[in-house]
Amino acid sequence: MMADRGRKRVVIENVRPEINGGFFPIKRVVGEKVIVTADIFGDGHDSISARLLYKRQGDKGWQDVPMKFIENDRWMGQFIVEELGPYLYAIEGWVDQFRTWQKDLKKKFEAGQDIRVDVLVGIEHLEKSVKKTSKNDRKKLLEYINILRKETDIEKTVTFILGKEIGKLMDRYPDKGMATRYEKELVVVVDRDKAVFSTWYELFPRSCPSRSGEHGTFRDCETIIPEIARMGFDVLYLPPIHPIGKTKRKGKNNLPQADPADVGSPWAIGSDEGGHKAVHPELGTIEDFERLVAKAGEHGIEVAVDLAFQCSPDHPYVKKHPEWFRWRPDGTVQYAENPPKKYEDIFPLNFETEHWPELWEELKSVVLCWIGKGVRIFRVDNPHTKAFPFWEWLIKEIKRDYPEVIFLAEAFTRPKVMYYLAKLGFTQSYTYFTWRNTKREFMEYLTELMKTEVREYFRPNFWPNTPDILPEQLQYGGRSAFTIRLALAATLSSSYGIYGPAFELCVNDAVPGKEEYLHSEKYELKHWDWDAPGNLRDFIARVNRIRRENPALQIPWILKFYEVDNDYLLFYAKATEDFSNIILVVVNLDPYHTQSGWLKVPIHELGIDPDQPYLVHDLLSDDKYIWQGERNYVELNPHVLPANILRVRKRLKRETDFDYFM
Amino acid sequence: MMADRGRKRVVIENVRPEINGGFFPIKRVVGEKVIVTADIFGDGHDSISARLLYKRQGDKGWQDVPMKFIENDRWMGQFIVEELGPYLYAIEGWVDQFRTWQKDLKKKFEAGQDIRVDVLVGIEHLEKSVKKTSKNDRKKLLEYINILRKETDIEKTVTFILGKEIGKLMDRYPDKGMATRYEKELVVVVDRDKAVFSTWYELFPRSCPSRSGEHGTFRDCETIIPEIARMGFDVLYLPPIHPIGKTKRKGKNNLPQADPADVGSPWAIGSDEGGHKAVHPELGTIEDFERLVAKAGEHGIEVAVDLAFQCSPDHPYVKKHPEWFRWRPDGTVQYAENPPKKYEDIFPLNFETEHWPELWEELKSVVLCWIGKGVRIFRVDNPHTKAFPFWEWLIKEIKRDYPEVIFLAEAFTRPKVMYYLAKLGFTQSYTYFTWRNTKREFMEYLTELMKTEVREYFRPNFWPNTPDILPEQLQYGGRSAFTIRLALAATLSSSYGIYGPAFELCVNDAVPGKEEYLHSEKYELKHWDWDAPGNLRDFIARVNRIRRENPALQIPWILKFYEVDNDYLLFYAKATEDFSNIILVVVNLDPYHTQSGWLKVPIHELGIDPDQPYLVHDLLSDDKYIWQGERNYVELNPHVLPANILRVRKRLKRETDFDYFM
Repeated sequence: MMADRGRKRVVIENVRPEINGGFFPIKRVVGEKVIVTADIFGDGHDSISARLLYKRQGDKGWQDVPMKFIENDRWMGQFIVEELGPYLYAIEGWVDQFRTWQKDLKKKFEAGQDIRVDVLVGIEHLEKSVKKTSKNDRKKLLEYINILRKETDIEKTVTFILGKEIGKLMDRYPDKGMATRYEKELVVVVDRDKAVFSTWYELFPRSCPSRSGEHGTFRDCETIIPEIARMGFDVLYLPPIHPIGKTKRKGKNNLPQADPADVGSPWAIGSDEGGHKAVHPELGTIEDFERLVAKAGEHGIEVAVDLAFQCSPDHPYVKKHPEWFRWRPDGTVQYAENPPKKYEDIFPLNFETEHWPELWEELKSVVLCWIGKGVRIFRVDNPHTKAFPFWEWLIKEIKRDYPEVIFLAEAFTRPKVMYYLAKLGFTQSYTYFTWRNTKREFMEYLTELMKTEVREYFRPNFWPNTPDILPEQLQYGGRSAFTIRLALAATLSSSYGIYGPAFELCVNDAVPGKEEYLHSEKYELKHWDWDAPGNLRDFIARVNRIRRENPALQIPWILKFYEVDNDYLLFYAKATEDFSNIILVVVNLDPYHTQSGWLKVPIHELGIDPDQPYLVHDLLSDDKYIWQGERNYVELNPHVLPANILRVRKRLKRETDFDYFM
Repeated sequence: MMADRGRKRVVIENVRPEINGGFFPIKRVVGEKVIVTADIFGDGHDSISARLLYKRQGDKGWQDVPMKFIENDRWMGQFIVEELGPYLYAIEGWVDQFRTWQKDLKKKFEAGQDIRVDVLVGIEHLEKSVKKTSKNDRKKLLEYINILRKETDIEKTVTFILGKEIGKLMDRYPDKGMATRYEKELVVVVDRDKAVFSTWYELFPRSCPSRSGEHGTFRDCETIIPEIARMGFDVLYLPPIHPIGKTKRKGKNNLPQADPADVGSPWAIGSDEGGHKAVHPELGTIEDFERLVAKAGEHGIEVAVDLAFQCSPDHPYVKKHPEWFRWRPDGTVQYAENPPKKYEDIFPLNFETEHWPELWEELKSVVLCWIGKGVRIFRVDNPHTKAFPFWEWLIKEIKRDYPEVIFLAEAFTRPKVMYYLAKLGFTQSYTYFTWRNTKREFMEYLTELMKTEVREYFRPNFWPNTPDILPEQLQYGGRSAFTIRLALAATLSSSYGIYGPAFELCVNDAVPGKEEYLHSEKYELKHWDWDAPGNLRDFIARVNRIRRENPALQIPWILKFYEVDNDYLLFYAKATEDFSNIILVVVNLDPYHTQSGWLKVPIHELGIDPDQPYLVHDLLSDDKYIWQGERNYVELNPHVLPANILRVRKRLKRETDFDYFM
């Protein structure tokens, strides 16, 4: 028979959050709350007590908070994570003999039963606790026992023994000898704020306005940093900055043959000039890169680099580590392919190699190399085409020493794979936002992201475009389609990004029948006219300023959709937990026509008096409206402004509503 | 770095069924199917193969079946459990290099690409397998390699190498060197048929028509066995048959004081005449009991006894094992109470005693004692007031040697506790059916029981009444309420039971304002008039015969509700997996009035031609109807027959529909 397990009468099950049975951590940022619920119950009718335990991983002792009974044997507790790095949480529950006794005594007394023996039982409980108490409490406890022994008026005895004072004291010394400890310790990975609130700008540095000639450089890049900052971005993501392969280099528009003048795809990494730890000579030097990182930092911008773990045929690894590639019977290396498509300018690394431990270490050293240059954010190219165990290991290894590092997964793949990569440790992920267009699609997708277990480990980053994707709605919807997609990305998700300047210049020429850019910047230099008429720079700057100034837009998962009687209008609210900042957003999803409708404003949920007017301030247009009650009218001309981003200017006194956020 | 984990590219997660992360088994009966699903995927675009492994626990080798891809990375496999006792199942998945190669070759060939090197890669795959093959297969494989080496016509080569023959051979020798094995082995407990299909009759043997005097005996009981069998019951459950305590014995109607003539509650177990291993002298001897068991067996009836682990103050345990009880400061034993209710005739066992291992062993010996007398079914009294770890241990211990034993939990308690007891191992459980009355309540509750994970471990047993519960609808609905409740219990659930003869005699006198029998048989002898006019014996016999003759009614969880335009009518279908037996049931939930309505018969799901008539045979009334299409009329007078139990007499050729049963 098993140790003392037989006497443990309390069950703890169905603990949430718990990802894959506790195999993977949940995610939070510093200062965020972890709400833990569980079914906790014992046999019979005895009272149960339960505590939520938590600590930083590696700490010796646990901190704890009492859990509260909700209903139907469900309990809840919460704590706040205050530092970077992993935390643990666990649960403990026990039959609370003293509280059971108090509860029963009260019932018996009220039913007029003889409770003299029960009082003696209570004294026994107190006596058992004497040994455990602090000096002060011991003195009190002995006093209580004395009073109870002497008191002859049973009514007085009961009033005294059921009093709060004794209960509180006894709560400090629970008899947990037979407590049940939940069989798992669960992990929370704690990131910094930027993990949930970030605004990304993707830029090919070689296309920066160049002072010295054709090919932009890191130095050229520095000159546009102030404008990127003015637009309100805080992450500048650069596609691979490494030497570009020459063998099988792709020509313009992805032609299999390159002209001698063609610059090639930056994702074909490595040449005789170096591999993943080198920079492309035409961009400048490592020192130039470090200068750029510093300069960006002065403007509140972090530089993110691309981790594209693949090689051009000229990459030094190919010669030095042939064992990391897959060789074909004709003595050539297997290039990347997704038949019938061929990517002959790229050799994938073979994660099935027997020499995987050396390969993993080398790739880790690449990440450490860029960390050494000041980089703390990595955008990871196609993580779903590399072995899963590698990512889990790599991210854990890096974050052990650098818990502030952020990894964004370019996981444009099937849903389960996308979510699995997040479980493995990726801080943020690209999403299907890029292809969601209708009201129903947004409501369903955002509900999945924000209102299910997914939100515990998957942090969306919404991109209206990327160098690989010019979605149909941007191809056909004109300038207003770009403003609509930006407003949606920036207000539905606390992290979003654009690939610029193609975005703000509303570039919409696609390869016919595809969602790809014609004359894609991936294969050629661009000389963008940043000041072209109709550009969206001021609009973007305004939206991003609204994001910065309104904490409701910086929280990823507090989002709720509400009714509006027009299917082209999407209406949702974001709010801080204390309701001090409430933003109502209405977006016209139709890029062609003015749409109008009647909103059903959730005044009851927001604590607004139905009989009093309230002010809403459209932060986009700066218009102010006096509304009253639930039904209010909106009209949006997408050629002027496609959205209202309304701040509710009502002083609310409502407490946090648990249900509202669940 | 971890062993060879780094090369394992396949992920297996979200395995169903898996109860509490695999901590508890699922349940099946011999011959039943286990359908296992899981998310299985790898990185990249390679083909995946997966197998479902299973074996009897303790067997050395695994059997396996291929799993099939369904959609969205979900896979499915199934096996049939063929013997009593525990089985294990597990999953294995791997990147299938050969199938990947075949798939890619086909695409490349169809795109007109040069595939000569690819053919060489294929030959390498074949060569790698040569070592692993059987003698016969080796010969074939070497032939294939030879043909491929010599063949110069690329089209012929491709046709040959993509042929089924090679694929099948290679499937027999998968390269599982880097296969991922799901981290858990999950358990199925396999019971005998009666675990899911059983028809219970609860009877106080002391109230059997007595030849010798007042108090019925086991011998008297024998005389009514044939009638219980005629009514179609296959389990005869006897409330505790042990010596009844004398101290604090309850009088009639649960009076605190008994008259000297009062017989007391059989649940106050133990006296100077013995405890849980003895029989009450007035019922007869142990030998009489064994005779009754044998006699019942001749009529296809199993005798179930009650495990009520509690003691009267006179139980031998109290003296012999005072350490198994909770003592109060006044030197008395704590009796059972749920304040302010007191049960002074009953001492609960203290499962928190330090001597729990001895207590557990003793209680196990009680079960073994009755197994020794031929009992294989136990109804367990109030399992939710005894420690959970005890039940888990006890049931496992008993079923290790006697896998045919059935434990029915009288778990009339909160939902999570009720389900938890089922997880711990109880074979069947009482349910909330007793208090479900409206169409919506039935649909919601049955959906929870039959269409959620609950069905994997919880087997309902529906009781319209028990000696403890005379529900309101039986108190007020007259005879038709009894026929309605019986029809519902018998057709909604494959296991059900009644407490008789109070049920078939439509006894409906309650303690005012309570759901308890007035003059309850729990506290007094009854001399029932089995032949009283209006008794339901023939009705019950008919319903039970229909259950025996129709396999659809013997399967617990194949049940679906359908539309009918009257809220007093409940319409549902049960069917065998192969659709060879389809039963449509319509029940009038209103015991007072005739109700009629139009059904929407699921002809499409059932494979019935909408343009052809079909015959439905009401097995209750023996009426036959020719129906056509979806909409058909029914009318039910509860004073005649409250239900149609319609067998669809249509020869169907439909295959099992996976979705239909999920």
